[in-house]
Amino acid sequence: MLNALDRLMLEKVADLHEIPQGAFNIRKNGAGVQRNTTANIDIVTKADKSGIDVIVKPFTVGESVHIPVIVTADNINDVVYNTFEIGEYSDVLVVAGCGIHNPGTNASQHDGIHNFFVRKGAKLKYVEKHYGQGEGQGQRILNPRTFIEAEEGSTIELELIQIKGIDRTKRDTEIRLMSEARLVVTERLLTNKDQEAESNISVEILGANSSAQIISRSVAQDNSKQEFNFDLVGRNKGRGHIQCDAIIMHNAQVHSIPKISAYHSDAQLIHEAAIGRIESEQLIKLMSLGFSESEAEDVILSGFLK
Amino acid sequence: MLNALDRLMLEKVADLHEIPQGAFNIRKNGAGVQRNTTANIDIVTKADKSGIDVIVKPFTVGESVHIPVIVTADNINDVVYNTFEIGEYSDVLVVAGCGIHNPGTNASQHDGIHNFFVRKGAKLKYVEKHYGQGEGQGQRILNPRTFIEAEEGSTIELELIQIKGIDRTKRDTEIRLMSEARLVVTERLLTNKDQEAESNISVEILGANSSAQIISRSVAQDNSKQEFNFDLVGRNKGRGHIQCDAIIMHNAQVHSIPKISAYHSDAQLIHEAAIGRIESEQLIKLMSLGFSESEAEDVILSGFLK
Repeated sequence: MLNALDRLMLEKVADLHEIPQGAFNIRKNGAGVQRNTTANIDIVTKADKSGIDVIVKPFTVGESVHIPVIVTADNINDVVYNTFEIGEYSDVLVVAGCGIHNPGTNASQHDGIHNFFVRKGAKLKYVEKHYGQGEGQGQRILNPRTFIEAEEGSTIELELIQIKGIDRTKRDTEIRLMSEARLVVTERLLTNKDQEAESNISVEILGANSSAQIISRSVAQDNSKQEFNFDLVGRNKGRGHIQCDAIIMHNAQVHSIPKISAYHSDAQLIHEAAIGRIESEQLIKLMSLGFSESEAEDVILSGFLK
Repeated sequence: MLNALDRLMLEKVADLHEIPQGAFNIRKNGAGVQRNTTANIDIVTKADKSGIDVIVKPFTVGESVHIPVIVTADNINDVVYNTFEIGEYSDVLVVAGCGIHNPGTNASQHDGIHNFFVRKGAKLKYVEKHYGQGEGQGQRILNPRTFIEAEEGSTIELELIQIKGIDRTKRDTEIRLMSEARLVVTERLLTNKDQEAESNISVEILGANSSAQIISRSVAQDNSKQEFNFDLVGRNKGRGHIQCDAIIMHNAQVHSIPKISAYHSDAQLIHEAAIGRIESEQLIKLMSLGFSESEAEDVILSGFLK
């Protein structure tokens, strides 16, 4: 059922060289094509709308769920609602991600709307990779929305990566942290040509002693535009740190707007942001080692986005 | 014409213990009360609206202009438009500032709307202090608006200080930097009780090799609210750096929203912001030296706002 192109796309977005171990659900051009569940992880098709419920039993440790989405036709507009119940004291990896190969002239779009309930003491690592390619002129559009409720003592690690080839993206990520919850978000974004990317991340420190760290790195090339709206709110004792760094090249534009708001005298919030070019010292050093200028740039950029 | 209260207010906002040297214009309760001009600095009453034109001749070096405003009655709503022509290659100090003593039950408000034209190669230091007191319940409100056009090679230093006693303030500061212009803004703000303060600073790097540095420090106590909107735009080769630090205490709220936008690949923009409480290590150290907790807090806060 999966052809060579499908397999390439799955590799790009989920590092899958073969059918994954454990639970998975592969979606292609708006429909599920393959699924596996395990004793501890169930995947159930939603009755009322497009999407799935992923249910991880309490105390499930060391298992993974792969739910890649691939789009290989033009004129697709796929909206999917996925709900994740991450049971108490479980420790799981969820790998999502979407690859669009658009061969045609009409836009193809996938909007993954994800709701996570990470229960007491659970650990979740969530990886989302976005990738686009295709010989057609049709735009490749991805607008993910991710809502996470992090219950008491939970630990959440998000890796949000847009590798290349996405013409338009609007990423909305909202996270609410209850007491003793820990969050680390890592975002990596590259845009080129006339691409536009907007990333909006809101984190609310609601419970005492919770912590949030958001690290965003991006490269904007050619005529592309990037906008980052990060909103960190401290309503209780806790720590939050936003760090965003962008490398700007050519005629690109970068807008960085990280907001921090403290409503509690024991909320400690920090943000740091920088927009700048590739450091010329690094370039010169690599070129003195025999790299061409564009090779040296590539080395620096891939190190930066690693 | 100036009584003891007037003199106290002048000291608070302009460090004036006596009538200043050089050019000055003292405004009280909505009307000019005293003025001096010099051979190089003229002060002319505007014909079309309330306010003055301050004209500094090219190459004027080492002179100062004091233009303090005092309000000592309630129910005053004073809007004043001042225009400053800072001539080529001059080097001058402008001390503005407003003190409100509100003895009554109705609000008293002063809005100083200042337009600066800082000509080629000129150096301007502009100091603005705001202070309020008074036994009445009437609010003390100050909404300054400052626009600065910084021509080629000019150097501008702004000190914006709200000492205490201002119930509401909305500060708007907009600066446009031409090539080789340099800007340093220092803001110090303290709010307590139910006070609210909003500071909006926009800086545009328009000319090549211009630079901007904005350093904001604030203390928010009791139920007060502070909001900072800093907007740094790089449209040319240049450097910009925003740094804002707030100490939050009691039930205060602080919102810090520094936006950086790069439209040029040689624009290097950085912002850093932090909201947090007084460092407990510092407190403990001072208390071990014999200070009470509140004395130790005072020492730390005045150091921070210095």
